[in-house]
Amino acid sequence: MSAPIPAEALQLRSLVRADQMLELFLDLVPVPEPGPDEVVIRVEAAPLNPSDMGLLFGGADMTAAVASGSAERPVVTAPIPDAAMRGLAGRVGTPMPVGNEGAGTVVAAGGSAAARALLGKVVAAAGGGMYSQYRSVNVALCLELPAGVTAIEGAASFVNPMTVLGMVETMRMENHSALVHTAAASNLGQMLNRFCIEQQIPLVNIVRKPDQEAMLRAAGAVHVCNSTSPGFMAELTGALKATGATLAFDAIGGGKLAGQILTAMEVAINKTAKVYSRYGSNVHKQVYVYGGLDTGPIELNRAFGMAWGVGGWLLFPFLMKIGPVEGKRLRERVVDELKTTFASHYTKVVSLQEALDPANIAIYGKRSTGEKFLINPNKAG
Amino acid sequence: MSAPIPAEALQLRSLVRADQMLELFLDLVPVPEPGPDEVVIRVEAAPLNPSDMGLLFGGADMTAAVASGSAERPVVTAPIPDAAMRGLAGRVGTPMPVGNEGAGTVVAAGGSAAARALLGKVVAAAGGGMYSQYRSVNVALCLELPAGVTAIEGAASFVNPMTVLGMVETMRMENHSALVHTAAASNLGQMLNRFCIEQQIPLVNIVRKPDQEAMLRAAGAVHVCNSTSPGFMAELTGALKATGATLAFDAIGGGKLAGQILTAMEVAINKTAKVYSRYGSNVHKQVYVYGGLDTGPIELNRAFGMAWGVGGWLLFPFLMKIGPVEGKRLRERVVDELKTTFASHYTKVVSLQEALDPANIAIYGKRSTGEKFLINPNKAG
Repeated sequence: MSAPIPAEALQLRSLVRADQMLELFLDLVPVPEPGPDEVVIRVEAAPLNPSDMGLLFGGADMTAAVASGSAERPVVTAPIPDAAMRGLAGRVGTPMPVGNEGAGTVVAAGGSAAARALLGKVVAAAGGGMYSQYRSVNVALCLELPAGVTAIEGAASFVNPMTVLGMVETMRMENHSALVHTAAASNLGQMLNRFCIEQQIPLVNIVRKPDQEAMLRAAGAVHVCNSTSPGFMAELTGALKATGATLAFDAIGGGKLAGQILTAMEVAINKTAKVYSRYGSNVHKQVYVYGGLDTGPIELNRAFGMAWGVGGWLLFPFLMKIGPVEGKRLRERVVDELKTTFASHYTKVVSLQEALDPANIAIYGKRSTGEKFLINPNKAG
Repeated sequence: MSAPIPAEALQLRSLVRADQMLELFLDLVPVPEPGPDEVVIRVEAAPLNPSDMGLLFGGADMTAAVASGSAERPVVTAPIPDAAMRGLAGRVGTPMPVGNEGAGTVVAAGGSAAARALLGKVVAAAGGGMYSQYRSVNVALCLELPAGVTAIEGAASFVNPMTVLGMVETMRMENHSALVHTAAASNLGQMLNRFCIEQQIPLVNIVRKPDQEAMLRAAGAVHVCNSTSPGFMAELTGALKATGATLAFDAIGGGKLAGQILTAMEVAINKTAKVYSRYGSNVHKQVYVYGGLDTGPIELNRAFGMAWGVGGWLLFPFLMKIGPVEGKRLRERVVDELKTTFASHYTKVVSLQEALDPANIAIYGKRSTGEKFLINPNKAG
């Protein structure tokens, strides 16, 4: 309501070209008119989540990225390997808006009472395409932030916090009593660690580096296993026996880790078994793969009996399954603890133009834990 | 009650020795006294099912088997590879009885009315240890065969028929409408093909040889794909599009086939998709691994989105899940069609001694489709 709304504004787009090149650019698009149930958000904060990277980069080799364009409208191009290109046929030639979530000020609203009620408010929104200066979003996807919570504090209130709650709800719904988490030093992993400590849920954290192990232990984690340690399988088995965890959420995907977790679970279970069973234990062991930090194939050696499952897990299908009432309850829970359990921390705030700087891409594109970037689309380039 | 019951009788045993050798032998064991709810069966027919091979051979290299012992009490030894040995720690030094199912005449019964009612009857039993001349089995695991059904006809009335029914029930319980089956030319596969034709359930059969394809087509199968054909992926995708199958039962386990099936399912689903979704379709695609013809690792390339699952499937946990009432309904259905849909066919009937002849092991141990052996433990050696 304060600053005038422009007719056109910038939006980050990711284009897979038929010549097997990725092109990232800033498009000047009309600021949308809100529909009756929509609000127009002036986006002030949108995190670069690991879950945004697939759509943003399309599997392109960003180490070979080349910058062009102007300072105001930079362009980045990068080659897409054959293997990645096969899965992208559906998006060739269509520039995709990017950004799962973000927050900002509602500057225009449609005619419905729900929409008008948000006018002038700071809201978080899981609307997609949030790497935009202005974005029209259905009110059902908006969450009004309480007084005193800034757009930066609310920007990442959806994907990571709801994933943490989704993992714990899944654990309960499927009758497990403890969790295993890989890539556990991630922003999401630290959040899960805080929430599990708060809820007294036993959690086995799997990391890849000694400093990640130290960081999680300093944050109160009891069980932290380093998958690069020579004693990893024995340490993991010990932690699984201590916690009784039979459910894992795996952000890595490729390689042998999912199978190693199932194997260690089976060994831990059989430490209390009395008789030989040729089919292994009858305790169901489950790994849900929710990320793809390693895009190589999953390799399962099947040394874990017959009571096992591996499958994909995504937040949105989970929310569809539990329905809107339960989903709203979870979101309210997040808002209540947005400055504590569900807080996100950023190492750098960038403009849309800076987000396309290859030097920045080299940092946030690595998805290395410890580095987390936030885009402010209305920050001067 | 005609022939006298001996005090001792032969039982086939499989022993994993600490020196990493498998030893198969015939033990002379006391014929058991039945408990109140038990009957003693004079076993006349017990199939050598693929599901018996794991316990029988313990992963030993049977091509290196050596025969010894006497004509009446032959012994076979074979070396166990390191990889197989790791999973066998629980059974080292304990000679295991073998044989999931079989049929024969009840020659003694415990005191309960249910047990006494079976005296003199021909029963099928899923009692385990059925490669024995006499076996005491709880009446709950026995099924009285109707007049006119022989022990040979009823010997395999449990594992394969109930697995077929379990697959179809699982399909219904998990909201799929068609099936994929691998190693589809097996005895079980032929049975599933007959049952699906009868029930008008679309079935995609995957085989490895042209003659298996011809055999299933001659038996009325509409969709048969040969995984060794250069056009396999395209043919499979076509069959999946035609049937809408999103559930597969896989007897093979190791290798890339499970992943290929999920990939082809995803491509078939996306042939009707209107918009690009970075996470793939939201249709859940499932592969249940119920066998291990290939004991190597499962390799999943994950070119099939996020809505997928791979897991173990076994008949007994399935029966536990559906409960005894539903289980009884399924067994009665099998008996009704034991001479038609659920009939098994054998290429050779062997004695216990002949079952330990390396020349016979070389045939039935291959698990090649088309060869199915039956043991008659009371046949003269």
